[in-house]
Amino acid sequence: MTAQVESMVRRVETPEFDIMRAAYAELVVTDLAASERFYVDMLGLVVTHRGDDVLYLRGWEERTHHSLVLRVGAEPYAERLGFRTRSNDDLELIEAEFERRGCVTRWVDGDLLGMGRALRVWDPFGVPLEFFHDIELHETQLQRFDLQRGAPIMRLDHFNLHSAQVEKTMAFWQDLGFRCTEYISTDGDDERITGGWLCRKPTVHDLALTAGRGPRLHHLGFYVAEPPGVLRCCDQLAAGGYAPTIERGPGRHGVSNAFFVYLRDPDGHRIELYACDYYTGDPDHEPIRWSVSDIRCRSFWGAQAPDRWYDESTLLMGPDGTTTTVLDPNVDERTSRSEVMA
Amino acid sequence: MTAQVESMVRRVETPEFDIMRAAYAELVVTDLAASERFYVDMLGLVVTHRGDDVLYLRGWEERTHHSLVLRVGAEPYAERLGFRTRSNDDLELIEAEFERRGCVTRWVDGDLLGMGRALRVWDPFGVPLEFFHDIELHETQLQRFDLQRGAPIMRLDHFNLHSAQVEKTMAFWQDLGFRCTEYISTDGDDERITGGWLCRKPTVHDLALTAGRGPRLHHLGFYVAEPPGVLRCCDQLAAGGYAPTIERGPGRHGVSNAFFVYLRDPDGHRIELYACDYYTGDPDHEPIRWSVSDIRCRSFWGAQAPDRWYDESTLLMGPDGTTTTVLDPNVDERTSRSEVMA
Amino acid sequence: MTAQVESMVRRVETPEFDIMRAAYAELVVTDLAASERFYVDMLGLVVTHRGDDVLYLRGWEERTHHSLVLRVGAEPYAERLGFRTRSNDDLELIEAEFERRGCVTRWVDGDLLGMGRALRVWDPFGVPLEFFHDIELHETQLQRFDLQRGAPIMRLDHFNLHSAQVEKTMAFWQDLGFRCTEYISTDGDDERITGGWLCRKPTVHDLALTAGRGPRLHHLGFYVAEPPGVLRCCDQLAAGGYAPTIERGPGRHGVSNAFFVYLRDPDGHRIELYACDYYTGDPDHEPIRWSVSDIRCRSFWGAQAPDRWYDESTLLMGPDGTTTTVLDPNVDERTSRSEVMA
Amino acid sequence: MTAQVESMVRRVETPEFDIMRAAYAELVVTDLAASERFYVDMLGLVVTHRGDDVLYLRGWEERTHHSLVLRVGAEPYAERLGFRTRSNDDLELIEAEFERRGCVTRWVDGDLLGMGRALRVWDPFGVPLEFFHDIELHETQLQRFDLQRGAPIMRLDHFNLHSAQVEKTMAFWQDLGFRCTEYISTDGDDERITGGWLCRKPTVHDLALTAGRGPRLHHLGFYVAEPPGVLRCCDQLAAGGYAPTIERGPGRHGVSNAFFVYLRDPDGHRIELYACDYYTGDPDHEPIRWSVSDIRCRSFWGAQAPDRWYDESTLLMGPDGTTTTVLDPNVDERTSRSEVMA
Repeated sequence: MTAQVESMVRRVETPEFDIMRAAYAELVVTDLAASERFYVDMLGLVVTHRGDDVLYLRGWEERTHHSLVLRVGAEPYAERLGFRTRSNDDLELIEAEFERRGCVTRWVDGDLLGMGRALRVWDPFGVPLEFFHDIELHETQLQRFDLQRGAPIMRLDHFNLHSAQVEKTMAFWQDLGFRCTEYISTDGDDERITGGWLCRKPTVHDLALTAGRGPRLHHLGFYVAEPPGVLRCCDQLAAGGYAPTIERGPGRHGVSNAFFVYLRDPDGHRIELYACDYYTGDPDHEPIRWSVSDIRCRSFWGAQAPDRWYDESTLLMGPDGTTTTVLDPNVDERTSRSEVMA
Repeated sequence: MTAQVESMVRRVETPEFDIMRAAYAELVVTDLAASERFYVDMLGLVVTHRGDDVLYLRGWEERTHHSLVLRVGAEPYAERLGFRTRSNDDLELIEAEFERRGCVTRWVDGDLLGMGRALRVWDPFGVPLEFFHDIELHETQLQRFDLQRGAPIMRLDHFNLHSAQVEKTMAFWQDLGFRCTEYISTDGDDERITGGWLCRKPTVHDLALTAGRGPRLHHLGFYVAEPPGVLRCCDQLAAGGYAPTIERGPGRHGVSNAFFVYLRDPDGHRIELYACDYYTGDPDHEPIRWSVSDIRCRSFWGAQAPDRWYDESTLLMGPDGTTTTVLDPNVDERTSRSEVMA
Repeated sequence: MTAQVESMVRRVETPEFDIMRAAYAELVVTDLAASERFYVDMLGLVVTHRGDDVLYLRGWEERTHHSLVLRVGAEPYAERLGFRTRSNDDLELIEAEFERRGCVTRWVDGDLLGMGRALRVWDPFGVPLEFFHDIELHETQLQRFDLQRGAPIMRLDHFNLHSAQVEKTMAFWQDLGFRCTEYISTDGDDERITGGWLCRKPTVHDLALTAGRGPRLHHLGFYVAEPPGVLRCCDQLAAGGYAPTIERGPGRHGVSNAFFVYLRDPDGHRIELYACDYYTGDPDHEPIRWSVSDIRCRSFWGAQAPDRWYDESTLLMGPDGTTTTVLDPNVDERTSRSEVMA
Repeated sequence: MTAQVESMVRRVETPEFDIMRAAYAELVVTDLAASERFYVDMLGLVVTHRGDDVLYLRGWEERTHHSLVLRVGAEPYAERLGFRTRSNDDLELIEAEFERRGCVTRWVDGDLLGMGRALRVWDPFGVPLEFFHDIELHETQLQRFDLQRGAPIMRLDHFNLHSAQVEKTMAFWQDLGFRCTEYISTDGDDERITGGWLCRKPTVHDLALTAGRGPRLHHLGFYVAEPPGVLRCCDQLAAGGYAPTIERGPGRHGVSNAFFVYLRDPDGHRIELYACDYYTGDPDHEPIRWSVSDIRCRSFWGAQAPDRWYDESTLLMGPDGTTTTVLDPNVDERTSRSEVMA
């Protein structure tokens, strides 16, 4: 690897605020009943609240009110990606950081059930984020083995974004205190980063960046307890008539060591069921480099992913009520198609 | 091992009739609703038929009408142990065999739902058996992964009897065409068999004999698809308030290689969930000997079983409407307590 | 399904001889050391005997001398597919059956280590078979958990043949006493069988037929104890540099309920690791029909198999020392390409 | 629960220093070759360095030089329990804290291979601790699936101490910034804490306290990837003649949700293999209370632990070269035997 990329991926910033972890996503879906059948009946997420036009869901071990909010709308898109901060006081510091960058920021209060004051912002690339601390706590279902069904989805783990500017976007998240755990880069002297995995909690990631037309939400990653749970989920989906929702896998990623399967929900939103994470909390934890030409980084066992896994993604809602403009990986980034296809 | 025991366990008879396999048991229970909660809600058996005082159940891969019949009665006992024959014509040959031995035999027809003509007999030791061929076939639930819940109980596998006369009882079943796959015997010149595993289908057993006060039904063995299914079942039972039903294990038997757990149903009937069987179908398959002093035969990992696992069993119904007389392992059999405790 | 196909698949013959099960294959490989690294170091098969130009291997629970014989040669092909008979006397009866059909038959004695007299025949389609009873027995490694490594391959399970004449070939094997457990057929009035699974032992198959250019050996199927063993094997192969040997899967077949992965050995011979079989031993076990247009029969979860999985296969050695002529599925069989691609 | 205990377990302190996690233990063993067979050959730990009288080991995903140091000595005991700090500068702050309490403190430098400067201290109860930041980093073996064998031990997870003064000891560790995730307490108005689980990294624990004669090391907890890995380990141990090392389990703890097995190494040091942890990183994560009378807290499935699991533990080395004095749970703590036996 080149010294330049090495210094880029190793950069560690410690801002004054403390973003703890990826916490929830709000997705807009076109048929709430169809979404409930998929996420609740088939995948087994726990319903915290069911409203006329909204569903609040959480994983088996989660205590916070929701990690996935599904709201009915005319077109599918992602409304926001929520991160929990260590304290309420972090929010003003984050607001200042985003205002300094000229980003749109908005305070909301009780915008979602179970939540209090929260800070919505659109990052410099147009991604709709929300930062919050206050959220209602609920009982975990971790040991209610008698109630559990579907896949053993323990918790929301991470967001994966399609980005047309991977290196700049990675630098931005590093400024917010995220640390790079693994990355993919091109070979040769003109090394460029085409994929990055960034964490706050001590796992492989809270946020990952994949080179491609963006910004778009590539997928939501849910942590499942063990690989057999992923297999069981595939069997249940197929038996229930949902085989077409299985887009890629099951398989092993070299990057992150994930035992994965990718599903497309009834609106095409992509989710990953993800097992086999590892501890990354020590501050001298070295980022692992994967060459873009090494097929094992994306598929340790060598299986090809379908094109749509690389091409398709969920649009993001902008501050003006229309979805964010999507850019092609630009010339300055010099990320060729073959690199994107890593 | 002594030559005498070696010739005993290796004996292979080929009677004219063909008993295919252990097929079903009928148990009398005192509270059918409680039994349904245990066997259906917790363990996940499939209901073929639910009557006022009877429940017909089968495993996920089973196609025959039932492998477990639960009938309400004042006291718990085992009504009969059913074996399926290859053809209907086998039944007369079996009748002749039992009459030759002076056993009680009775023809029944439509005695149970889904069945036709069947031959009830009480074997020379007082065990209530039934032989039959005709039984209604149903759809398998093997690939209805969306409906499956509870433990992955695939099928009834075997009956295990407490016997006061293990060697004589083993010889009797060998006469019926059963072959010994594994056995436990005492050490020294006066070697005696204290446990025997006998099969017709090419697995470790359809019938096992355990030295002890008998004849009684020690347990029904159900085959589960894989060890994690046994663990999941324990978690579900405990979460549902059924932890006290878990009597022994999970663990590994040396004998049969079973990954097992033993449960006691609401009436105290014992069932085994059993994974990790192996193929025994070749005619020169050698019986495996275990010394009664080798703790690994009963508990490969060394854990002690509770006394009640050795002492308690289900009584059997006799031909006269009272339960069969239970004998202590008799002096002629010279099976001491320590041997029984294998 | 049409009455004609229904009567075809339900046909049960009981010849005088008793072929018990698929027992071993002999494959010719070009680099024995490379094959040993693959089959022994990576997959974990047990070495019974290692010679200068031959390797005798068996699975963890197998007691017979070998289930896979690898012999060095200039070109890879399959030398023979061995079936074990219940007794030695079956061999003459089988010889008569093949001579009646005008097939080449040959007696060999001690042709392979650990074996005695055996009958080699080439079936009417050119497949090199061997029938035998006598074979040396060895200790099982089933409970030598401390020695086990690689995949938990328990035993050879079945042979899968590419056949240009599936219906005729199925009828031939039914004449030998094999029973159809599952099959794939075309839709409509002119229903044709394009795949058949046939057993002698009470599992889904000892022999399967896949429509395609044949006769060729599509794959050897090895039974593994549980799905996680298949995953572990993929991880080990990939970590050892063998990812390119993983051709298809892991995944679930609808047919047979197999949790599978297909591998190509260093010479391109295909093997399947196969878990999740079920009991088929009752004589009224109904064959399961799958429509050729139902993607779930081949891939329950919907993933596409690569073309080479359908097209490529191992050539078979003929009686004259040259490999058997391969035919395209002929016009009389009216099996179109799309049907073959089931 | 009483308000008093509630406030005790909920206390959160944020000292100026940052102890990141339990990092390694040094145990004295009497036969290094025997220990290597147990920890390396059977359990599969990775050898970082093998010296004449010392062995440095780490788990599959660990990058730091060692998580277990085994050193030869005349009698078995625990030499020290090491915690890693976020930075080197934390060490002086920790030194001040312990000196303020009148504890023995000592600086060492290069005392162990792969390490630099470190602070040894004996806590107020006599437990030998070490705090350090600098440690050599090594390659992970996480994806060297081809090299892995034994149990899938990923990393050292926690220390469990037998303590005669659970409440005071818990308060001490809370002062150091540890947070209580779960605890066991007596019922009634005079509620007393008899067990506590305390963490720094966001898992259930880095340190646990069990009421009993202490201070002693009850066990080292190693995190394994998944429950089947625990089963495989038991099978391997038993097959290798190590069944007597399996002391308790496998089973499920209610507390911590651990799927566990407890082993005794050749010197009697106890280790736990531990799967199924959960995320505890949010600052408002509520401690879970278990009643001492609820058998499920220690054994979710209800199995009894042997007495020696409660009674026996490893002695700790004091600052003067003799092992620490062990106290009975004292009268002030009013922890009766029955409470200890929780």
